[in-house]
Amino acid sequence: MVFYIIGLGLADERDITVKGLEAVKRSQRVYLEAYTSLLLVPKEKLEEFYGKEVIVADREMVEMEADSILEGAEEGDVSFLVVGDPFGATTHTDLELRARGWGIPVKVIHNASIMNAVGACGLQLYRFGEAVSIVFFTDSWRPDSFYDRIAANRRAGLHTLCLLDIKVKEPSLESLARGKKVYEPPRFMSVGTALSQLLEVEEVRGGGAYGPDTLCVGVARIGSDSQRIVAGSMQQLLDVDFGPPLHSLVIAGDTHPIELEYLEQFMVGRQREAEGGSSAATGVVPPS
Amino acid sequence: MVFYIIGLGLADERDITVKGLEAVKRSQRVYLEAYTSLLLVPKEKLEEFYGKEVIVADREMVEMEADSILEGAEEGDVSFLVVGDPFGATTHTDLELRARGWGIPVKVIHNASIMNAVGACGLQLYRFGEAVSIVFFTDSWRPDSFYDRIAANRRAGLHTLCLLDIKVKEPSLESLARGKKVYEPPRFMSVGTALSQLLEVEEVRGGGAYGPDTLCVGVARIGSDSQRIVAGSMQQLLDVDFGPPLHSLVIAGDTHPIELEYLEQFMVGRQREAEGGSSAATGVVPPS
Repeated sequence: MVFYIIGLGLADERDITVKGLEAVKRSQRVYLEAYTSLLLVPKEKLEEFYGKEVIVADREMVEMEADSILEGAEEGDVSFLVVGDPFGATTHTDLELRARGWGIPVKVIHNASIMNAVGACGLQLYRFGEAVSIVFFTDSWRPDSFYDRIAANRRAGLHTLCLLDIKVKEPSLESLARGKKVYEPPRFMSVGTALSQLLEVEEVRGGGAYGPDTLCVGVARIGSDSQRIVAGSMQQLLDVDFGPPLHSLVIAGDTHPIELEYLEQFMVGRQREAEGGSSAATGVVPPS
Repeated sequence: MVFYIIGLGLADERDITVKGLEAVKRSQRVYLEAYTSLLLVPKEKLEEFYGKEVIVADREMVEMEADSILEGAEEGDVSFLVVGDPFGATTHTDLELRARGWGIPVKVIHNASIMNAVGACGLQLYRFGEAVSIVFFTDSWRPDSFYDRIAANRRAGLHTLCLLDIKVKEPSLESLARGKKVYEPPRFMSVGTALSQLLEVEEVRGGGAYGPDTLCVGVARIGSDSQRIVAGSMQQLLDVDFGPPLHSLVIAGDTHPIELEYLEQFMVGRQREAEGGSSAATGVVPPS
C-alpha cells in the first residue's frame, strides 16, 4: 500500500521516531540502506528491536535491483530505512521517483541528520554556508574543490560543515582490474585525516582560506552517549583522538559571543570537552 | 538526575523519537517550548499520548523563571520539549548552560527540523548557502538584511532557505505603552506575504538579486499528511494558497538536472503538487 522511506536518526535503534517504528512494524519487508552512512549499532540490534528481519541494501542492490525492493508494494507496505534523514543523500530520490512512477504511494518520515544535529557544537545553523565533502586522497586523486567553497564561506564570515568520506563495500581497484569484485574493508575518515588533507591543500593553493590557527570543531558520534565534541585550532585538533566513527568537522567563520560562550566547554584542554549528548564525565583525557 | 532537551520533529505527537518518548515517560515534569515554533497538534494531544501533564513554557517563563524549570532536576528527570531539533533556535542554550552550571547532567535528543527536512522539496541540502529570516514588515520597521545574503547565495549558485516569521504570545505595542501586557493573536507568515516583501525589497534595492521570474519552492506543514510543496516563479507562487501554518520558502540558486527532475512533480499547475509526505491526492487544485 505504501512505500516508506524512513530516517533512522544518528546513533542507535531508539532514534527512530514513533511514526517510523509503527511503519516498520506494519511492513512486509524492511530494507536498510548501508552505503552512504551507518548507524552506530549493528543490523542485528535493529532486527531485535523491530522483531523482524532487516535486509541490508548495498549500493549495487539499490542501483541494480530497485525493482525487487519495490516488488509487492502494491499489496503490502515496504520500508526503506536510511541513516539520518532520507534527504541527506541523493541516492534515494531515484528509488522514490521509480515508486511514484509505478503508482505506489510514498511516505517520507524525517529524522535528525548531521546537517542539523551539528548544531550541537554550539555554532548556529543559520550561520553555516555551503557544506563540503572531503574524500580520501590517493596518490593520484586529490580532489580539492572544497577549497574554494570554504574560502567563499570564510570570506562571508560563515561556518563550513565538512562531511567526511565513508567507504562501505567499495570494490578494490585491483579486484576490478581482475574482473572479480573483492571488497575493501570499510573506512571512515577521521577528523585528523581531514585536517591534514585540508592543511596540505592550503599549502599548495596558498590562498589563505584557513590555516593552522583557524578555529574548528570536531564532532564524533553525535547523538550517542559517547558523543565527543572538541574545539580548537586546526593544529590543536590534529592530534585529538575522536575515537570510533562517524566524524565530522566544522571550520568556524566569524563567531558571535553567544557561540563562543557555548563552545567554551568544548575547547581543547577542558575536562568537560566530551560532553553534549551527556554531561557525565567520560574519562577522556584531553591532549596536553 | 537528567535534564532532557528533546526535539519533537515537525508535525505531530508521533514524530518524537522512541528515545525521546522514553525520556518523557521517565520525567517528573515535562515542559513544551512554545514560542519559536509550533507543532501541528495541540498540547492536549501530546498529554494524551504521553499520559502526563505538559506545561507550556512561553518566552517569559524560559527567560524569567529558568530556575523553576530546573528545580528538582537533581532528584528526578525533567524534560524540555522543543519543536523540530533542540539546536534550531538559540534560546535553549541559555537553559542548557544554566543546567550544566548547576551540575545537572544534560542530554539532548535530536530530531528533524526545517533546516534538514526542507530537502523534501528536492533541492539538495549541500547546495544551500546561508539561511535567512524574514520578519513581518510594519509601517516603520522593514528590516531587509536578508537581501544581501540572498544576493551572495545566488551569485554563488546556492539555494536560500527563508525562515518565515512566527509571532506567538507577543505583547501588543499598545498594551506595553499602557504598562499592562495584552497579547496579540498568533501570526504566521505565509509564503505569499514573504514573496511580496521580497519583491518589494528588490524593487527598492534594485540589485537584481532575484525577481518575479526567479524559481522558488514554497513548503508548508512538512512531515505531515497535509504537507504541500509547490515550485514555480516568485510571481506564480504569490497566488498559491499553501493553507495553514507553518510555511517556509526556498529561493533556488543554480539547479542540477537531478534537482529539476525531482522538482518537476511540484511545479505549479501539476495535479500531483501536494505530495511528498503522502502521495495521496489531496484535492488541492493548483492555480490556473
